[in-house]
Amino acid sequence: MVFESKIKTIEWVNDVSRMIDQRILPKEFKLVDVKTADEMYVAIKDMIVRGAPAIGIAGVHGVALAAIELSKTISDKTEFLNKLKTKAEYLKSSRPTAVNLMWGVDKQIELACHTDGSPDEITKVLIENGIKLENEDIEINKKMGDYGAEVVPKGATILTHCNAGALATVGYGTALGVIRSAYAKDPTIKVFADETRPRQQGARLTTWELTQDGIPTTLITDGMCSYFMSKGMIDMVVVGADRIAANGDTANKIGTYTVAIAAKYHNVPFYIAAPLSTIDISIKSGKEIPIEERSHEEVTHINGDWICAKDVNIINPGFDVTPNELISGIITEKGILRPDYKSSIMNAFENISMVRN
Amino acid sequence: MVFESKIKTIEWVNDVSRMIDQRILPKEFKLVDVKTADEMYVAIKDMIVRGAPAIGIAGVHGVALAAIELSKTISDKTEFLNKLKTKAEYLKSSRPTAVNLMWGVDKQIELACHTDGSPDEITKVLIENGIKLENEDIEINKKMGDYGAEVVPKGATILTHCNAGALATVGYGTALGVIRSAYAKDPTIKVFADETRPRQQGARLTTWELTQDGIPTTLITDGMCSYFMSKGMIDMVVVGADRIAANGDTANKIGTYTVAIAAKYHNVPFYIAAPLSTIDISIKSGKEIPIEERSHEEVTHINGDWICAKDVNIINPGFDVTPNELISGIITEKGILRPDYKSSIMNAFENISMVRN
Repeated sequence: MVFESKIKTIEWVNDVSRMIDQRILPKEFKLVDVKTADEMYVAIKDMIVRGAPAIGIAGVHGVALAAIELSKTISDKTEFLNKLKTKAEYLKSSRPTAVNLMWGVDKQIELACHTDGSPDEITKVLIENGIKLENEDIEINKKMGDYGAEVVPKGATILTHCNAGALATVGYGTALGVIRSAYAKDPTIKVFADETRPRQQGARLTTWELTQDGIPTTLITDGMCSYFMSKGMIDMVVVGADRIAANGDTANKIGTYTVAIAAKYHNVPFYIAAPLSTIDISIKSGKEIPIEERSHEEVTHINGDWICAKDVNIINPGFDVTPNELISGIITEKGILRPDYKSSIMNAFENISMVRN
Repeated sequence: MVFESKIKTIEWVNDVSRMIDQRILPKEFKLVDVKTADEMYVAIKDMIVRGAPAIGIAGVHGVALAAIELSKTISDKTEFLNKLKTKAEYLKSSRPTAVNLMWGVDKQIELACHTDGSPDEITKVLIENGIKLENEDIEINKKMGDYGAEVVPKGATILTHCNAGALATVGYGTALGVIRSAYAKDPTIKVFADETRPRQQGARLTTWELTQDGIPTTLITDGMCSYFMSKGMIDMVVVGADRIAANGDTANKIGTYTVAIAAKYHNVPFYIAAPLSTIDISIKSGKEIPIEERSHEEVTHINGDWICAKDVNIINPGFDVTPNELISGIITEKGILRPDYKSSIMNAFENISMVRN
């Protein structure tokens, strides 16, 4: 059963990538048109667009924008492809942790290399592929939502961390997609949203998008999860992912790992919801996932204001890695993967290759 | 070995209770003179003064202020004592969780009832007792610091949550007293301070008072503790307490329980530092500790600004209870209490009664 959400986070419209500016929500709702690959690099780095699947599509759009620019002046195919690859590498360097960005950019470059025709013709194909992947993202999320809704207990209160919602994808969401599908089946379910310091995506984005869709949402601060778990007030946790290793270890927004430990201590099921494109089978475990270090101001300031002593030290990892032993299941568009993840992930990818062949 | 801290949080000066206004730190350092018991009620409720031992002394001062007021117009001892008791109950209702407030107020009332003489004479005794308890608070903290410093590993990085510092006591601090004493012995130790949302006492107060005293401090957001523990970057945790039950279950600032679970998962020692006056032997376990529910604005606003969607629900418990099984030791002025806490707490209190008799 599918819940219709009003939110479209990123969309290809008349040769530009149109996106919701997520830096200013919930105070202001504004659309931004990104017109070049360089603008896309900034949009990803500054988090106008964020969330692993959404920046995957941003990468896809970014390559299409680069192709439009380059095809205007370059007619030689080899030169065109070489310059396109350089722009692609630049785009990939905007954020290191989420694998979907690499996936989206690489998918476009692979397609460009395997397409016959002039730079203009290749550009057309990349644009069409972008629109196709956009639509697929929503379809994948809805499938994930259906699988995930099956494990949500009747009348459950579901805790989520950060924003793995419509705003983190093209639309519908991964973790919040599961919540939307569960809510469509059972309107007595409720959501607890972690604030998610330092950037407060839970407070700013998750409460905004869930209340937009009329889903009852309680905002809590990040330290409170264990208190509510100990009172029996949280029945399950579902979060998104930025990169999943071949053994199921999952990188997600900083603070996720703390919630997972608290869930284990209270025997609360802890689920990841992510498309297979988030799984990086090239790395064996979470130890190999690079963790982005972000600016000190994210910790020392809120809304432009200092919140602490000025001569304090800061370390600001953007992500942490939840080890597979804390994860009850990984909800994907191909069903829910269960431990042992090494096998279940391998099986999921083998089935895809079989379908492709 | 004792480290000299410059900070005096609350002090009796010329018939007023002078205190640092903790609501505006670290932006502004301002002293406030509290002149009546009613003003003291507001000062405690609005958290001009906060921290269990400090509000214990605020309660002591509050009764002395009430006595000064009442003795101006009442010469009958019975009437004076009855009215003093009424004011005392009012003061105790300002914040429900910290037992030190009840301890401080009750100690003054007991003394008033057992003192011979006129209301004026009783008032004088209450003022003197306030000054005595103030000094004792610092002495107790220094003793706690000495005991606590013994369990701090050489070169350790110590995580603390909220502010159990000089600012939470008359001076020196409980958890931060342990850190001060450890730093005096070993200047290579470092501190990680949790921000402590919603009121950010860690960011606002702990980073301020530690950097004032030159102790190297790193500010982290509340969700980050597990990440740094998993990297081996935190060697121990020490926090304060608002009330400890007879079995060692400990109420402290919301979020403490989450840190304790993370510490257990990573085998990081987790200590409470609190004077015996924080232990409430009248209650068997943490289940009986009342948890203060605070205003929604603390969660929805930071520095007066909305941070989330407007139609979100809020539950804002001010404290949580860490079960005794997660606590490595309770550092008191009489030494470090170890599991089984039921026995070690009983023994500590029996030794005190023996000394008193």
